[in-house]
Amino acid sequence: MSETSKLKPPSAETIDALAHIVGESHALRDEADMARYLTEWRDRYHGRAALVLKPGSTDEVSRILKCANETRTAIVPQGGNTGLVGGQIPDESGSEVIVSLERLTHVRDIDLASNTMTVEAGLTLTGAQQVAESAGRLFPLSLASEGSCQVGGVLATNAGGMAVLAYGSARDLALGLEVVLADGRVWHGLKTLRKDNTGYDLKDLFIGSEGTLGIITAAVLRLFPRPMERVTCIAGSNDLEKAPEFFARVYDAAGPMVTAFEILPRIGIEFVLQHGRDTRDPFPSPHAWYLLFELTSPRVGEEPHRLAETLLQEGIEAGEIADAVLATSLKQTQDLWRLRELMSEVQKQEGGSIKHDVSVPVARVPEFIARANQLVELMIPGARPVPFGHLGDGNIHYNVSQPLGMDKAVFLSNWEALNAAVHEIVLDLGGSISAEHGIGRMKRDLLPHAKGALAVELMRKIKASFDPNGILNPGKLL
Amino acid sequence: MSETSKLKPPSAETIDALAHIVGESHALRDEADMARYLTEWRDRYHGRAALVLKPGSTDEVSRILKCANETRTAIVPQGGNTGLVGGQIPDESGSEVIVSLERLTHVRDIDLASNTMTVEAGLTLTGAQQVAESAGRLFPLSLASEGSCQVGGVLATNAGGMAVLAYGSARDLALGLEVVLADGRVWHGLKTLRKDNTGYDLKDLFIGSEGTLGIITAAVLRLFPRPMERVTCIAGSNDLEKAPEFFARVYDAAGPMVTAFEILPRIGIEFVLQHGRDTRDPFPSPHAWYLLFELTSPRVGEEPHRLAETLLQEGIEAGEIADAVLATSLKQTQDLWRLRELMSEVQKQEGGSIKHDVSVPVARVPEFIARANQLVELMIPGARPVPFGHLGDGNIHYNVSQPLGMDKAVFLSNWEALNAAVHEIVLDLGGSISAEHGIGRMKRDLLPHAKGALAVELMRKIKASFDPNGILNPGKLL
Repeated sequence: MSETSKLKPPSAETIDALAHIVGESHALRDEADMARYLTEWRDRYHGRAALVLKPGSTDEVSRILKCANETRTAIVPQGGNTGLVGGQIPDESGSEVIVSLERLTHVRDIDLASNTMTVEAGLTLTGAQQVAESAGRLFPLSLASEGSCQVGGVLATNAGGMAVLAYGSARDLALGLEVVLADGRVWHGLKTLRKDNTGYDLKDLFIGSEGTLGIITAAVLRLFPRPMERVTCIAGSNDLEKAPEFFARVYDAAGPMVTAFEILPRIGIEFVLQHGRDTRDPFPSPHAWYLLFELTSPRVGEEPHRLAETLLQEGIEAGEIADAVLATSLKQTQDLWRLRELMSEVQKQEGGSIKHDVSVPVARVPEFIARANQLVELMIPGARPVPFGHLGDGNIHYNVSQPLGMDKAVFLSNWEALNAAVHEIVLDLGGSISAEHGIGRMKRDLLPHAKGALAVELMRKIKASFDPNGILNPGKLL
Repeated sequence: MSETSKLKPPSAETIDALAHIVGESHALRDEADMARYLTEWRDRYHGRAALVLKPGSTDEVSRILKCANETRTAIVPQGGNTGLVGGQIPDESGSEVIVSLERLTHVRDIDLASNTMTVEAGLTLTGAQQVAESAGRLFPLSLASEGSCQVGGVLATNAGGMAVLAYGSARDLALGLEVVLADGRVWHGLKTLRKDNTGYDLKDLFIGSEGTLGIITAAVLRLFPRPMERVTCIAGSNDLEKAPEFFARVYDAAGPMVTAFEILPRIGIEFVLQHGRDTRDPFPSPHAWYLLFELTSPRVGEEPHRLAETLLQEGIEAGEIADAVLATSLKQTQDLWRLRELMSEVQKQEGGSIKHDVSVPVARVPEFIARANQLVELMIPGARPVPFGHLGDGNIHYNVSQPLGMDKAVFLSNWEALNAAVHEIVLDLGGSISAEHGIGRMKRDLLPHAKGALAVELMRKIKASFDPNGILNPGKLL
């Protein structure tokens, strides 16, 4: 149970009342049945729960929260349980109740002229992408966990991913929400409108609030034209300083056609080549950095291909990049993306890895990496930084692999100290200590320093007025 | 003074203290000097004020609000005084103090790799556009009042305009804010990041809050590649039902290249031809409806032109449009846009006009117009609807010109009754009673019905916790 004193462990009577709302077959009381809701895949966060509830309708969610609010029972909303900061995992008290949205999977509406679909919170992201595709449209949000993560969860955490540069984060892709408030009342905000200036922006307050202000039960998501052409390129570079310039060149010319612009370090490519099956080096000789980018177009035609060729040539002539490859087959495209997709996974084969999910202004990415690398060498000599990520939006996954031969546990004992030192650099550069993953449990205590006392005070005021009893995801975010 | 009982008329001492903060030369006490801040250009809203203050820095704004909060003095923030719902105009009590941001016009930073500029609140929108252009970029927000309206005002009202379809509203174009809170403390939220998931979204709470939660003093605005090609087309249509289909065809193929998609009725074209200088009918024979749209590209080349030709031809073959013209010269482009730009102005020549700034889902625009037209004919036989606007985002300016020969005042006496009835249709179709202009004074009393009691309750809670003494723009929005 969190430090919030108003909360009480649910009585047997409360547990029965809550289970009755969803029906016994959708209420898990047994530790073994609950297990997969109590820990996440890395087992970094785990907890206990009094009950796991799987409501089958917004009305059931509403009745659960009404009961929980009256009985001061702590509620932990959970989507696909793929969050990386522990926001979806209960504490160790065994007094909290998990509300899983997994049964709310209906597609309520598709409106092709408005380019919207209205879907329920438990639909997986892959499911949402497929609904869009069946309607001849694109839902562009794309994450590594898309097969498991759910619409409600990606909105509650404002998930980002690969296509933010062109399409924005989850926030930018939602036009309306249906939200159950702490006291069980339902806010019906499922608007399909691009333009609606009627009062405070409640939608964006719920998005990214990590289940602490209400439970999202359905959302209106934006649809886009499907790309009919897609060109993937990789450029080798030996001068990181030039990478933002080359990005600016590409973005200037291609604008919204640039749907991804990633950066990968040589060491990461080496890890992939060594540990990843069916991988190949994109160039005959190595480069210090690799810029992987994609141009798409909603029209059939040669334009993205021609434009990419021109940009690569211009980049080489300007000395911004050293070499370049443009994928000319589906196989080659997949090979290039495989270098990026395996980047996290292969680091596991190299021992411990200390991670940072940060962003800085695009222009300052080289400075950030240089300063962070220096710091790492000072703090843990021999440790191997593997900074990679979304250069186009300044979001760098600054991962550090352990020195060769060091004991993994000894290395990982540096986690918090290294995080703290790297975050200082990030803040100094005007960056964010959580670009994509949110705050959850992991970064809760870092928030006041990162955002300042005033911002946290405003957030606390909002929390107190939306959830006066503090039943919604206590101990997370704030 | 508003109904909020905590407020007090400022004493002579308070007025002196406030004037002292900005210096006497920037404090207007004389009714004649204050006149241009007390009424808007249509003179639909006017009020009185104890003082007009023109602070020269964020720090001065901070000290003003600290003093106002301590003395319970009502503050009316004002940008370019172009708002259409009275949000920027004080009440009639003469007890309120206007804070004009017009002296805060510095450009604090331009970051081309991050595609951002950091500018102060008093810069005009035209000024912001020019700063972007000087840096070789586009700031896409564009409104009829852009020469006068200011960055702070467009953010406080989440202004929309012509390019929302491709670039979004003011909200979508701001990455960070600096805001002075009711008690004078400054929230330093000037992040230049696309990705930042650190707690509740305070930025979007201030944007669109119409000066009731804080005073925006600076903002980080997004920059985009400048369009290098621009093609304007107009299509004539005799079947409004087909307009959303043709829009879908254009958007599907051209995606983010579609930077405007407007609809104009024949009667509007006739008004323009009759009252607008240097105007010409785009087709030899009239059509019931006109679809005016623009494709742009950040690259030099024939593509937008070729694509537009293809789409117009396809639209004609599919029976979605009846005739089409593609502008082939700058003069012809200007002529086409002139039809749209004069649409509001020329209605003044036709007597009284009752206006609605509403949006509905794009697919329901034909149904909305049909139902609203029926209603008008029932309520005011002979009245002439002139519905026009941004079909691509469902934002229709549903204006109604008076019947020929009717007394203007008699016609205008129907304003509120007609608004109420049209708004019912809008709400029934899932639309918004204020698409672009906001709530201000004009629609404050309509908000609870339009949004529901729960949404208004949440807004009031936020207001109470951010501005407990209610000094910021009392009587507006809520």
